[in-house]
Amino acid sequence: MNSVRAFSVKALLAFSGTSMRFTCTTIRCMSCPPNNQSPVEATKQLEWKALPGNDEARLNFVLKTPKGTRDFHPKQMAIRERVFNIIINCFKRHGAQTIDTPVFELKEILTGKYGEDSKLIYELKDQGGELLSLRYDLTVPFARYLAMNKITNIKRYQVAKVYRRDNPAKGRYREFYQCDFDIAGKYDTMVPDAECLKIVHEILSELQLGDFLIKVNDRRILGGMFAVCGVPENMFGTVCSSVDKLDKNPWAVVKKELVQEKGLKPEVVDHIGDYVQQSGGLELIQRLQQDPQLSQNKQFLEGLSELKALFEYLELFGVTRQISIDLSLARGLDYYTGVIFEAVRLWDQKELHVQKQNGYNEDLNVGSLAGGGRYDELVRMFDPKGKKVPCVGVSIGIERICSLMEKKAAEERVRTTTTQVLVATAQKDFLKERLKLISILWDSGIPAEMLYKKNPKLLSQLHYCEETGIPLVVIIGEKEMKDGVVKLRVVKTREEVDVPREILIEEIRKKLNLS
Amino acid sequence: MNSVRAFSVKALLAFSGTSMRFTCTTIRCMSCPPNNQSPVEATKQLEWKALPGNDEARLNFVLKTPKGTRDFHPKQMAIRERVFNIIINCFKRHGAQTIDTPVFELKEILTGKYGEDSKLIYELKDQGGELLSLRYDLTVPFARYLAMNKITNIKRYQVAKVYRRDNPAKGRYREFYQCDFDIAGKYDTMVPDAECLKIVHEILSELQLGDFLIKVNDRRILGGMFAVCGVPENMFGTVCSSVDKLDKNPWAVVKKELVQEKGLKPEVVDHIGDYVQQSGGLELIQRLQQDPQLSQNKQFLEGLSELKALFEYLELFGVTRQISIDLSLARGLDYYTGVIFEAVRLWDQKELHVQKQNGYNEDLNVGSLAGGGRYDELVRMFDPKGKKVPCVGVSIGIERICSLMEKKAAEERVRTTTTQVLVATAQKDFLKERLKLISILWDSGIPAEMLYKKNPKLLSQLHYCEETGIPLVVIIGEKEMKDGVVKLRVVKTREEVDVPREILIEEIRKKLNLS
Repeated sequence: MNSVRAFSVKALLAFSGTSMRFTCTTIRCMSCPPNNQSPVEATKQLEWKALPGNDEARLNFVLKTPKGTRDFHPKQMAIRERVFNIIINCFKRHGAQTIDTPVFELKEILTGKYGEDSKLIYELKDQGGELLSLRYDLTVPFARYLAMNKITNIKRYQVAKVYRRDNPAKGRYREFYQCDFDIAGKYDTMVPDAECLKIVHEILSELQLGDFLIKVNDRRILGGMFAVCGVPENMFGTVCSSVDKLDKNPWAVVKKELVQEKGLKPEVVDHIGDYVQQSGGLELIQRLQQDPQLSQNKQFLEGLSELKALFEYLELFGVTRQISIDLSLARGLDYYTGVIFEAVRLWDQKELHVQKQNGYNEDLNVGSLAGGGRYDELVRMFDPKGKKVPCVGVSIGIERICSLMEKKAAEERVRTTTTQVLVATAQKDFLKERLKLISILWDSGIPAEMLYKKNPKLLSQLHYCEETGIPLVVIIGEKEMKDGVVKLRVVKTREEVDVPREILIEEIRKKLNLS
Repeated sequence: MNSVRAFSVKALLAFSGTSMRFTCTTIRCMSCPPNNQSPVEATKQLEWKALPGNDEARLNFVLKTPKGTRDFHPKQMAIRERVFNIIINCFKRHGAQTIDTPVFELKEILTGKYGEDSKLIYELKDQGGELLSLRYDLTVPFARYLAMNKITNIKRYQVAKVYRRDNPAKGRYREFYQCDFDIAGKYDTMVPDAECLKIVHEILSELQLGDFLIKVNDRRILGGMFAVCGVPENMFGTVCSSVDKLDKNPWAVVKKELVQEKGLKPEVVDHIGDYVQQSGGLELIQRLQQDPQLSQNKQFLEGLSELKALFEYLELFGVTRQISIDLSLARGLDYYTGVIFEAVRLWDQKELHVQKQNGYNEDLNVGSLAGGGRYDELVRMFDPKGKKVPCVGVSIGIERICSLMEKKAAEERVRTTTTQVLVATAQKDFLKERLKLISILWDSGIPAEMLYKKNPKLLSQLHYCEETGIPLVVIIGEKEMKDGVVKLRVVKTREEVDVPREILIEEIRKKLNLS
């Protein structure tokens, strides 16, 4: 069984970054425990022998993360923490509470909620017991939570990962965070809806990502428009999904799809085209109110009058400059029943030019930075008595935001730790003194590090500070010990002062507030 | 197809809390799309008709979270946030960076790392593509991350959920958080190990959970002891797992298991018993150094001398009062190679009495509040060149800590929002004025709420503040509008003052710093 060690290392370019394929000779065959051993003992031994020295079986595997997923490195995490803080602080500023739900749900909970995207749901293996699926979004689990706990009103946020077996080739991840804010409850029309849009505006402004636009529409406006145009009721969903493509395609392409693939009459499609290519503010609402056909459609008028109220509230919030009604906006998810919205980054000509030169042009239309809408019927689907709990909510497109932020920070030096002080020495045999001193700093709440080597060089200690951005160094040596002081050094200015030990913490605090 | 609506609601007591079983008549049969429709259209229509009014098929399902999982409500989340902050701040105080890894890994990555617990790993269904498993802990993914990215030294923390198909009847959850801190790299002996123990001490002290004890041992000490007693090498794992039960069982029970179930000779077991029932501090180390048999075992001496160094460092940190060497501590996971440790809550007689009266006695030994150790060989299992990256780390038992904290806070009123101001009115038709005002507060970074009703009563607005702990109310009405002021009310004292609008934000900030 003792074969010659043979590693064949080969770099593979995988979606999730670098990965390595190698022939690993380290792990013994699971199915063949040696004689006189229980399977348990055999398994135990496996681990103790699973080292490259004991080559008894071969296992081929690739050292990578699963397709469509990735690790986040410390620098990425530091940027993400900044972004998450801005988003969560905004949610809290609006009085939201938070909840948490399991990463998987009973399979039936997710069934029939996502239309044609249901095929993207991850299922768990049947290992005996319940059939489970990984959550596809945070909205359906939230609705399940409300129905199960009989909660009829709540303002909640949730930041968690969701899972979709999507195509990584399209630049989509299979595991990603969602940051959701939702308001559940029967309230006066459009007040919670306006708050959701205000939140998107606050977050995108604070993130300083550049110009953005929040497109708004209403499912009832779409429904009314399509009815007026003569679209059969059962084709609402499929017409929506074609029209929704207008943000990335010219009308001619969408028209072709509607006529040739979906079989609508050309005159019906032209009629649709006249409507859905319109966008604007209050003046559009006024124009639509006077449309002879639309003004006869009850569903349409209901949507339009609520959109008008929404706009009035948004004017009071002073955010309408970044908001536009876009009659082609349809949104993918099926559970929306009223207002829908989506925020996108607006690129100016100069930015487009720079991005094209840098080869980023595929990112220009990476999709929405935030999206949401009203879903008044979803909770009812879970409630045994069919009780209605109207909801409106928004999901912040954190992955897209973070990728924009990462590009912005590509040249920047981002600190990945919060260490304020390095405890250093220039002399040998000062490990114990350093340990005593750093313990005092930790116990005083000051983020501090020291090199773990017994006798590190002063230069490498100072170099470590510059590399990782630590602003202060506390240096101890024989002379300082004798004098009952330590040297406090400011890394940036190289300024050094002797500080009596009794006032060291105080001095560090002072320096940190100033520098 | 139109059947009579029939709901049968029945409460079920499930592990994860209240759940409801009901016959839901709301969702149409997926497999029978009506004629003339593509499956896509049929699916679309499904959602739009999936309301209790359109009963065309029946689906039996239980409204619950999966077995062994649970939702977290706002109050629990508020407590968890407090606990997480203390833990993460401590990790950061020690200069740790953070990373994130996917919730699932390639199945092979986890294979052969968890000994007999491998059966508890969740697997994903094979939906075409890679075979995946949900992570079982954060340590193996961390080791995979180090090997894959060729990182040889890092101090990192990670807070994330892990998954184990464990038995909920034993009070174990199947989804829970781990908070891990690990130091990877070849450093001088025991310095990083001492820091891990210092971190446990800092966190448990700051959480004020009551008295605790950190038990320490070393895998090499166990190995040496068992060898000296005459335990065959291949029985190391199984003897460990019996001896580890000494924290919950008297020696007689463990002895019986070792003799009757595992087949060791009684004199061997007695010899083991003499050793593993010992615990103590430096004096125990000195006694063991003089043991005629143990002092001949190289592996034992190696472990002991490192434990001695560890103790010296811990004395410099001033934490040895809560630390005890416990020769029965073995820890479940197989990847440990050196120092191991575990922190437990110490109950005094009075507490034991109170807990028994409250029926909490089953929680007395809920398990460890933190645990960890050195695992020098794990990264090597993933490295194609078999490169060794020594690691030591600790995992904080956040779920147990949170359940203790929840019990402490059971009577307490825990705020679940951070709202500081309610924007209120005593008069009708002030919705727009409230919206304008609250927008100013939000834009100034002040957490504020208002009731969504158009014309709420002042009493219900004040009541809302008391209920949710909002400290300040800003009241506007006609008189205030005319005078260019608002009324600023302190909820607790009921004190009210008129504040000019120009200085409102300033006044609110002043009040919040004071109250």
